[in-house]
Amino acid sequence: MAQTRRQFLQHVGITGGAGVMYSAMGALGLAGVAETPAYAAPTRLELNGRGKKHVVILGAGIAGLTSAYELRKAGYQVTLLEARKRPGGRNWTVRGGTEEKDLTGATQRAKFSPGQYMNAGPGRIPQHHVTLDYCRELGVAIEPFVNQNADAYLYREGATSLSNKPIRHRTAKADVYGYVSELLSKATDQGALDSALTATDKDALISFLRSFGSVGSKVDGFKYTGTDGRRGYEIEPGAGMEGGTTAAPYGLSDVLASGVGNYFSFEFGWDQAMMMFQPVGGMDRIPYAFEKAIGREKITYGATVLGLRNTTAGVEVTYSTGSRPKVIAADFAICTLPPHIAATVPSNLPTDIVASLKYAVPTNAGKLGIEYSRRWWELDHRIYGGITNSNLDLVNTWYPSTGFHGERGTVIGYYNTGSNANSYGALTPAARLERALAQGAKIHGDVYRKNIKATFSVNWAGTEYSRGSWVGWPSQTDGVYAKLLDATGNIYFAGDHLSHAIAWQHGAMVSARAAVTALHTRVTSR
Amino acid sequence: MAQTRRQFLQHVGITGGAGVMYSAMGALGLAGVAETPAYAAPTRLELNGRGKKHVVILGAGIAGLTSAYELRKAGYQVTLLEARKRPGGRNWTVRGGTEEKDLTGATQRAKFSPGQYMNAGPGRIPQHHVTLDYCRELGVAIEPFVNQNADAYLYREGATSLSNKPIRHRTAKADVYGYVSELLSKATDQGALDSALTATDKDALISFLRSFGSVGSKVDGFKYTGTDGRRGYEIEPGAGMEGGTTAAPYGLSDVLASGVGNYFSFEFGWDQAMMMFQPVGGMDRIPYAFEKAIGREKITYGATVLGLRNTTAGVEVTYSTGSRPKVIAADFAICTLPPHIAATVPSNLPTDIVASLKYAVPTNAGKLGIEYSRRWWELDHRIYGGITNSNLDLVNTWYPSTGFHGERGTVIGYYNTGSNANSYGALTPAARLERALAQGAKIHGDVYRKNIKATFSVNWAGTEYSRGSWVGWPSQTDGVYAKLLDATGNIYFAGDHLSHAIAWQHGAMVSARAAVTALHTRVTSR
Repeated sequence: MAQTRRQFLQHVGITGGAGVMYSAMGALGLAGVAETPAYAAPTRLELNGRGKKHVVILGAGIAGLTSAYELRKAGYQVTLLEARKRPGGRNWTVRGGTEEKDLTGATQRAKFSPGQYMNAGPGRIPQHHVTLDYCRELGVAIEPFVNQNADAYLYREGATSLSNKPIRHRTAKADVYGYVSELLSKATDQGALDSALTATDKDALISFLRSFGSVGSKVDGFKYTGTDGRRGYEIEPGAGMEGGTTAAPYGLSDVLASGVGNYFSFEFGWDQAMMMFQPVGGMDRIPYAFEKAIGREKITYGATVLGLRNTTAGVEVTYSTGSRPKVIAADFAICTLPPHIAATVPSNLPTDIVASLKYAVPTNAGKLGIEYSRRWWELDHRIYGGITNSNLDLVNTWYPSTGFHGERGTVIGYYNTGSNANSYGALTPAARLERALAQGAKIHGDVYRKNIKATFSVNWAGTEYSRGSWVGWPSQTDGVYAKLLDATGNIYFAGDHLSHAIAWQHGAMVSARAAVTALHTRVTSR
Repeated sequence: MAQTRRQFLQHVGITGGAGVMYSAMGALGLAGVAETPAYAAPTRLELNGRGKKHVVILGAGIAGLTSAYELRKAGYQVTLLEARKRPGGRNWTVRGGTEEKDLTGATQRAKFSPGQYMNAGPGRIPQHHVTLDYCRELGVAIEPFVNQNADAYLYREGATSLSNKPIRHRTAKADVYGYVSELLSKATDQGALDSALTATDKDALISFLRSFGSVGSKVDGFKYTGTDGRRGYEIEPGAGMEGGTTAAPYGLSDVLASGVGNYFSFEFGWDQAMMMFQPVGGMDRIPYAFEKAIGREKITYGATVLGLRNTTAGVEVTYSTGSRPKVIAADFAICTLPPHIAATVPSNLPTDIVASLKYAVPTNAGKLGIEYSRRWWELDHRIYGGITNSNLDLVNTWYPSTGFHGERGTVIGYYNTGSNANSYGALTPAARLERALAQGAKIHGDVYRKNIKATFSVNWAGTEYSRGSWVGWPSQTDGVYAKLLDATGNIYFAGDHLSHAIAWQHGAMVSARAAVTALHTRVTSR
């Protein structure tokens, strides 16, 4: 779907918008800059004289909003049909007053204080995602999202000296890197890697390892002693003669057996390495900014799609807002519904296309927001944002990335996926909270149960209109998925599920751009 | 200087203030929590009935301000004498209108735009420093300081395929960790470490390394291929079939020879690991908040100390504000002047005390602020805050941690120390800028020279009243330094130089607390 560099460079300069500057730098070959898939926004110029085309967009999630926004720039008429009463889809910020009935019929009503919220869906944005370009273009203020914090914890139930208690990331890292450096220095020095390393390589490697692991020199056997403060102190370096009091490192076998090191690679990931960002005030600032830019009147909320048909003239969409069904005719449709839901809409789509939609496998994720009236993680644990990871079924605890030193704050008490999410999702909201508090108190102590002001939990598999957190494909290369990338008659498909950035807003946005580009190319080449 | 836990626990509950909650948690033995040196702020209760003692404080830097603030809480009368026209000392934020004449007589006047600034001295605060407690207590708003960013660069002049061009931190890390994992997996698997590792250890280690370095399994020879995206993409994963296009990793020998890995350990440091913070609006929000809390009228600005004497009744300080010398008598003095400057003040201090002051060795640091009217690091390089490190003489480039997506921003064009700082410091401000731009353009390209709105450089060794960035001690354990930790008659000493957190505000604060505690203990036990 990405254009060639030549195609792209032909467009640059006459077009603009989010992502173009960045792509331009990539196209120019600046070392180390990743290139976002090239994108040249449609312009009114190109459409001039061809009459106004009408595009009906199913779903006002991020893919639908991006599609509408880009099409509007170029002068298309757009109509968005959205089943929910708000824009954003899974980009959903729960605040005080938010009410949601799940598929079991149970209703939660959030009582968060003013200014407190939980991002029930996406919560973080890496620097390279086009999501940030839309934030810039739409005027959505951003602030850092704390995805890693050396003072957050790793918690592993087990049978080692590191188990069943919170271990600071910094402590785990110092011990793992220390022992790795000691072992590899020894092996290198003793000639075990002479077939892979030159003498110069060996010197450079040992020099690196001594810095990386803070280990001794050859005469000290490259020993890791953990005395340099990286792993933390029992008494911090202070005034006068207090140089800092350290504890001995955990033993090598316990460090390896504990598994604390197995979380480190999370922070090296393309999409998870810091810096990360979030909109100030909640992730839904993005869909609301899109709504404003597109025009509130272009979106029909509470509209359930009942039918989707290709016609000779274009498309025909049947929908209901609660009373009798209505029919809307347009030149084109972009369907951004989750594929497993789109597959259930009555349509005249060919059976192989419906089969492609059904090929997607929805999965689950769950989140619990807990508003505390005391920021105990800062006051008692000295943790300012970040993530504690565990092998408990709550998996991840997120400390808030905003409101530092404030009176209150909202912790994500669990963020889990798959079977863990299903386990929590099967419980009532009250039972989810009780389970999460019992688990979270193992890590944080009794403070975890105190000063709770409000809570809200989401179970995406049980959430109407989503029925899952995101989808996976058994394959994205066997031709089944690929059928959804081209138009079927006058119907286009878009969504993060049609990208290689599934579960990210970036995926929805670049997929929408691809659909808009294909549609616009078709219109302008007629 | 730290109290014992028992002494501390006796105080907790009846005292309060910054750091106490945290210390309390440490004292309770919660796993992994470092204990700040215990501190129980003096209270009026204890002083009751003993009459108001007057303490004159030399210097309104962080140590002087902290001393005055804590003494005021307990009802002491304080007078601060400060040679500069502002509080904070080396905590100095340069804004539009800031004017400074250096020791050569050259004057710079900063022309930064409203809202733009450079922190010429301290710029970052780790989570565990008491500096954050004072921010909380004084109502100074904080925001994250970006000390590490996977998308910032490492730049090394040299002769490898990684040399003489910017390499993203994430790329360097993926390649170094990949090869380290490949090598150690091989050595482990081949039995080279059997004397150090059990079979269980070996399995756990290889399992960790496969995750840590993203290397293949045994049948693949544990090979590092760099295809998982950690090192970045040539084309980012996007819509449709674009799964992300990667480049091959750099070769093992080049990666090792380049030295890119030697910077990694910076981010593991006790004082440098993320998360880090800064006051919103400039580091000098801290001294100005202290000034307000203490009372502006307690501080005499423009006051040069001409003499310091112990007397039978207390102390006598001679100072000048430009006209004829004045003498102030008080019960006690706390001298927070830099030790090499305090040593030059005429006094009746014993010669061994003066010798101790002279034992400190001042060093140098330099910084250049460059305000750009275009945030090219975000727009063109996709870098949102963080530090680019190089082996050029500018050493470090800091991208701003605030104002993301704004119209303008202020980059720290160099932050260097020692001989590099001296080299720049020896130049005129204009020549410093020219040199820094030539070096910085090697990393960032021509964009580095464009859209420059204002600049300001500081050379701490050439800055009056500081004459250095901080000091080092040949030893802190040989008894010379230690002489300054006790009162000399009625004169106490305080400052970051009297701590094990030299060059940090934390050091100044804990040293001030130690002096205040000692003084108060003496007064209340009379």
